[in-house]
Formats: sequence, C-alpha cells, structure tokens
Amino acid sequence: MINRLIDRIMELEAPIVVGLDPMLSYVPQHILDEAYRSRGENLEGASEAIWQYNKGIIDAICDLVPAVKPQVAMYEQFGVEGMKAYVKTINYAREKGLIVIGDVKRGDIGSTSAAYAAGHLGRININGKDYRGFDEDFITVNPYLGSDGIIPFIEVCKQENKGLFILVKTSNPSSGEFQDRLVDGRPLYELVGEKVAEWGGLFMGKEYSYIGAVVGATYPEEGRTLRRLMPKTLILVPGYGAQGGKAEDLKHYFSKDGKGAIVNSSRGIITAYKMPQYANYGEAAYADAARQAVLDMKEDLRKAWSNK
Amino acid sequence: MINRLIDRIMELEAPIVVGLDPMLSYVPQHILDEAYRSRGENLEGASEAIWQYNKGIIDAICDLVPAVKPQVAMYEQFGVEGMKAYVKTINYAREKGLIVIGDVKRGDIGSTSAAYAAGHLGRININGKDYRGFDEDFITVNPYLGSDGIIPFIEVCKQENKGLFILVKTSNPSSGEFQDRLVDGRPLYELVGEKVAEWGGLFMGKEYSYIGAVVGATYPEEGRTLRRLMPKTLILVPGYGAQGGKAEDLKHYFSKDGKGAIVNSSRGIITAYKMPQYANYGEAAYADAARQAVLDMKEDLRKAWSNK
Repeated sequence: MINRLIDRIMELEAPIVVGLDPMLSYVPQHILDEAYRSRGENLEGASEAIWQYNKGIIDAICDLVPAVKPQVAMYEQFGVEGMKAYVKTINYAREKGLIVIGDVKRGDIGSTSAAYAAGHLGRININGKDYRGFDEDFITVNPYLGSDGIIPFIEVCKQENKGLFILVKTSNPSSGEFQDRLVDGRPLYELVGEKVAEWGGLFMGKEYSYIGAVVGATYPEEGRTLRRLMPKTLILVPGYGAQGGKAEDLKHYFSKDGKGAIVNSSRGIITAYKMPQYANYGEAAYADAARQAVLDMKEDLRKAWSNK
Repeated sequence: MINRLIDRIMELEAPIVVGLDPMLSYVPQHILDEAYRSRGENLEGASEAIWQYNKGIIDAICDLVPAVKPQVAMYEQFGVEGMKAYVKTINYAREKGLIVIGDVKRGDIGSTSAAYAAGHLGRININGKDYRGFDEDFITVNPYLGSDGIIPFIEVCKQENKGLFILVKTSNPSSGEFQDRLVDGRPLYELVGEKVAEWGGLFMGKEYSYIGAVVGATYPEEGRTLRRLMPKTLILVPGYGAQGGKAEDLKHYFSKDGKGAIVNSSRGIITAYKMPQYANYGEAAYADAARQAVLDMKEDLRKAWSNK
C-alpha cells in the first residue's frame, strides 16, 4: 500500500491528501434539507448529511489526488450513526480508487493496541470466518506509550500490507509543550522521530517504509530536521492552509527526489465554496469549488517539491 | 460527577473500577451460542455476545463498586456493531447506578478534540435540539499534543459536570521509552503530572479536581512522586492483577485520608471464572465468579488504603 501511495503521488503529480473532516456547519443547505427530510432531524439525519457531503467531494476529487483522510472525531461526534457514515465514506473512497488514511490517533498498551489494529486495519475471526470492522488502508497512531503500544499495529500492517503514520511533531500551537522539551539537549520530537525511523525498518516498502510520520506544516525547521532523521519515512503533513502552513515552508519535508511527503488540506478544500476566491461557485456547486481548490493547491505545492 | 465518584468510593469502601474489556475468547459458550443463533455468526452476533456478557457482569457487581471502565478498543474491533454494544454497555451501567469511565485515550488538535469531547462527553445541536453520541461520565485522554488538545475537553467537562483522566505514566513495560526521558533532570511524566495538576485547577470539585490522571500500578515509585505532585488529582490506576501490580505497591497512590485513587481491574474480574481459585464457579456462573473476585479485590486493597 505504501508503494501504491508513492506511485499514485508521482503519477498524479499530487502529494496531496484531502481531509474529510465534516462539520454540520460546512454542509450546504440543500444536502441538509434532503438528509433531514429522509432520515429525520436527529443523529441519523445529520450523519446522512455528512456522508452525502463527503460523497460529492469524493466524486469531484477522486481523479486528482491519491488519498483522502477522514478525521474520525468528526464522525464520532454523531455517535454510532456517525460511525456508519465513517464506514460509508471509507468504502466509497476506496471504490473510487482512493487510498484511505483514517485519522484516528489511537494508541494504548499492547493488548489494547492489538484490538484497535484488528478493528481499523485487520480483521477479526468469528467461528472460522474473517470480518473487517473499519478497514482503513493507513491510520494515524500516538506514540506516547512507546514500542509495545506500537508494535501490535505494525504486526497487523505486515499481515495486511497496510501502514501507519505515527505522530512526531503535531501542527497545533501548543504541540511544543511536551514535544519540544529537551532530552539530553535534543527535543523529544527528534527522539520520537528516530524511533519512528527504527520502527520503520520493521516493515519497508520499495523506497519508503510502511510506517510513516506526522509532522505539522506549521513547524518547517523541525520538518527539515525530521526529514534528515527519517530518510525512509513518508511524512504526512497536516496544517497547510487553514492552520497557517505555507507551500514555501514545505520544501524541507520532501526528499531530493521530490518524494517523501504528502500534504493534507481539509477545510481549505472541503469548505472552499465559503472562501472569497471560490464564492462564484455558490453553495450548490461546493464540490466543484473543492475540485478547483485541489487544482490550485497542486500548483501551489509544485514550488515546494518539483524544483529541488 | 467527581464528587459523586469520591462519595461512592467511600460509601462502598471500594476504590475499584471494573474494566469491561471483553474479548470473544472470554465469553462463555452458552452466551456465544445464543448470540450467534439470534444474530448470526458475524460482527452483529459477536457484538451481541460481548454485550450480553457485560450485562451479566454489570448485574453481578453493580452494588459493590462505584464505576466501570469499558475499553473502547475492544468494541471498535467489531466495527459499527461493536460500537452499538459499547453504547448499550454505557447506558445499562448507568441505569444500574454505575459511573462510566470510557477508556478511549482520545486527543488531537483543538478543533478535533472539541469534536471528540462533544461525541463522548457532551452533545451536538441539530436544528435547535441536543443529541448525545456516546455519553460517558469520564473519558481518558492522551496529553502528547499539549494544552490546546486538552482544554476543549475541559470546556465540555465544565458544561456537563463530567471529568477526564489524562495519561501521565502508563502501566505497560515500554511506557518509559518516552515518558521516563529526563527533561531538565526530571522525567517527562513528572512534567505531564504537573501540567495535569495545573489543568485540574481549571475545574475543581469539593476535594478533588474533575481532571484526573492515569498512573499505572506497575510503577509504584513513580506513583509516590506523582501523588505528591498532584495533591488534588484523583488517580486512575490500571495494571493491578493481570498486568502485575500488587496491593502493597498501591498505598503510595492514595492520599492520607484514604482517598485519591481508584484501581482498575479488567481480566482479573471479568475472566475470574477461568482462574484456578474461582474454577468451582464454572463457566455458566462466570458473573458470580466476577462478583467474588471483586469482593476479594476489595479485601486485598484494604491494606493499601485503610491503614495509612
């Protein structure tokens, strides 16, 4: 799956993942009206609305980008009904040829991580037959519990040819509170990065490991250091656009060959229709606005990765 | 809710939370057979089985302990059907007077943590009416992203009179890989502990904060230090029993008044019927074995907290 992800990035010339992080306030009124009419003004109707909204976006961008990244929190907020919309989104994106990165940030002690891994990446055996729970291609995981919380995920990745993105340096303003603390004179995120590179050696693809890293676009100097510490690690970069990360800052995240990073944008694409520069599309054509925003992002990123 | 949790611990003389972490292999055959017969040998049948298994345990222990802690990974492994069993378990436990600690270990950047908080502790507004997703009383959260990943959870706790347990020092063997690294000569978990105490000041109950901490039973010396650094923090202690934590090691986690900690046991209670000392109960009476295991745990813990 990592090989396919890298290949698709190069084929499409798009190191881009579209974050499917729907809030009800993002959904155009005509979709809300129809969902509430057919399912009721309740958690089921709201979940139907975000699913239909996602479907429109997936249809509009599936030939332009290699992957989508649904943020599970945006589905969990609607309870079980939201989780059904999460599953529909995963399955539909895969039908449309997209790789699915579940942004779940799970992580626990060994036996519990094994259960998360089974549910999100693997399968569960019921009386001799295998079933799948959520079935993402990649998921994000949290490293705070150390190796025995991570290895069970890697074991399942090996069985399934799937992958991880492990949090190293996150994009949010207070990420430094713990991640930047100096350990033996070096920030904690460097130690985590080195560990991710080491874990990555446990399951290598052709050029890059199945075990990737999350490094926020909002910390380009840290990105440069981490690129060097994790040469075989694909970096998933959140924080471009709405969170403030700029394309010129992203060149450090890419390797010399122009590979090595994939940049996420969520609000900048899925709510493009609300932005002044795409306002002419109008609410009804929100998906067309999202498509144009992807094309514009692709151009914007070109300066970060094509002329290295 | 924190006041009620402390009061119930003292009334019942039981600083105990029962971990509802069901694996299919734990479920007695008669429950599996009935669930598969009624719902099919699939994810729905398996989820029905773990729900029925939980129900038996809740009925058997609800008058003995203040709280249960379902580990959401054990439900997520069965996909959406498993999440339905998670909701049934939460609702039934509350009906039976138990406080519910959702062991979800969520945590993300601010806007995403806000969505998790809405889904697990709060509510979501749909056209003027409020709905609840999972509705636990407390949840566990991961601190790796720092304050802006935590504050949105605390905001929702304030609105709902609910609480958190933030990971500080986890019970697993490799927890030290990052948590023990020295920052300015002190282990990272101490810095996290101090931050938890500071966050705790944002929402105080009568004696203890609504914002608690997770400190594993397997690290008693660390427990002693953290008890001192977080005097108003209720400590949730996993790792007793099956993971190796012993009652005599737990005295440091309690305050001088015998309060201040609540100890989790999962496998030691819910799979008691498989252990030599409870084998006489047999599989059919698994819930009675669980009840006896709680009574025995209560006696065992008495030496840790009653004679301080």
